Amino acid sequence: MRTRFHQGLDELKDKLLRMAGMAEQAVDRAIEAYRQHETQLCQQVFQIEDAINTAEREIDELALDLLAMQQPMAVDLRFILSVIKINADLERVGDQAVNIAERTSDMLALPPVELPLDLSLMASLAAGMIRQAIEAFIHADADLAHSVLTMDDKVDAMNREIAEAMMEQISHSPQLSRQALDALLIARNLERVADHATNIAEDVIFWVRGADVRHGGKPAAARMRKS
Amino acid sequence: MRTRFHQGLDELKDKLLRMAGMAEQAVDRAIEAYRQHETQLCQQVFQIEDAINTAEREIDELALDLLAMQQPMAVDLRFILSVIKINADLERVGDQAVNIAERTSDMLALPPVELPLDLSLMASLAAGMIRQAIEAFIHADADLAHSVLTMDDKVDAMNREIAEAMMEQISHSPQLSRQALDALLIARNLERVADHATNIAEDVIFWVRGADVRHGGKPAAARMRKS
Repeated sequence: MRTRFHQGLDELKDKLLRMAGMAEQAVDRAIEAYRQHETQLCQQVFQIEDAINTAEREIDELALDLLAMQQPMAVDLRFILSVIKINADLERVGDQAVNIAERTSDMLALPPVELPLDLSLMASLAAGMIRQAIEAFIHADADLAHSVLTMDDKVDAMNREIAEAMMEQISHSPQLSRQALDALLIARNLERVADHATNIAEDVIFWVRGADVRHGGKPAAARMRKS
Repeated sequence: MRTRFHQGLDELKDKLLRMAGMAEQAVDRAIEAYRQHETQLCQQVFQIEDAINTAEREIDELALDLLAMQQPMAVDLRFILSVIKINADLERVGDQAVNIAERTSDMLALPPVELPLDLSLMASLAAGMIRQAIEAFIHADADLAHSVLTMDDKVDAMNREIAEAMMEQISHSPQLSRQALDALLIARNLERVADHATNIAEDVIFWVRGADVRHGGKPAAARMRKS
């Protein structure tokens, strides 16, 4: 039989999964808005972000309630703290989606131009990283979390390529510079989504292994009370 | 007489203050590097960031130890969670300083140009916001924290102005577009520093008032165990 505390932990996990789904959806909608030149989709992103902000607050409060409910074992403590950190990262993914939607709205007011870049690919990679990091969290799979860290290098490389291509564009066709800059900044927003996925993956590893890999640190589990 | 737990809380606060000092210094050095065209200062930023990363890990571990040590009262629980969140924000301020230093290194490889912008003013505002948010934290001063939120609007406005000015520059003088873009991106990094200060201020208010002001939420203190 599950205790009330453990039911609370399950509920916390469920809420975080729903939040992750919303964050991923926000990024997806924002990039669709960009691809399809669709203001309607930008509006959806703003609505999803509202829901994300509400969910963030609920998750933090539930985490606090659980910590106050009983003295958690070390493993539960790390789990709850990981949720709190992942929660903050997901909320910021929502912010990035909003930035993309705002920039897309900005672009839609300008004459449409063809730019030599593939933001969809970069977006699906970044969204895939979020999904994979959360998957790693669900299955307590540190190896899967590690593979997210590798994907981040790829997204960084794509971001640099896009920045170079857009700079070229700006130098050769200054009349397109505003659109090229918007595209460059959307790529940066996607790169930040990938960074948040990386943060989440690091938190998962921290939780699963009890080791802090964030800056090449040594396992800290030894100092913790064993559960 | 202070208990071991309360001594731990004091130590946690001290460590966080030192970390905040380093984060502020990193931003300061990065902008000095930009102003003085000084590679040496960029190197200092990278070193400070290393120290920040170590400090972040230590603070998280101490926070975990304290949570494991005893079942904290609600007010202490909120304090510890605020420290964990502020810690994450300060680490990201360090990342922003590194971004600025990298971009400055990039600029130093290009012909120096005069651009019509004042990044120093924006930098001192952003760094001031970090200082003020931490001040608010030390003195548990929610009103001071609120004034940080107001300052953020000013930094956002400066960021928009600089972006406009640099876009103008790029359209009229495409040969300066790389330097203008670097300046524009440094302004965005500073805007993100200000965002982190805002996050910290919100965490301070959350801790002091037991109310979640992040997204216009209602006081949650009522649900918490009173201390």
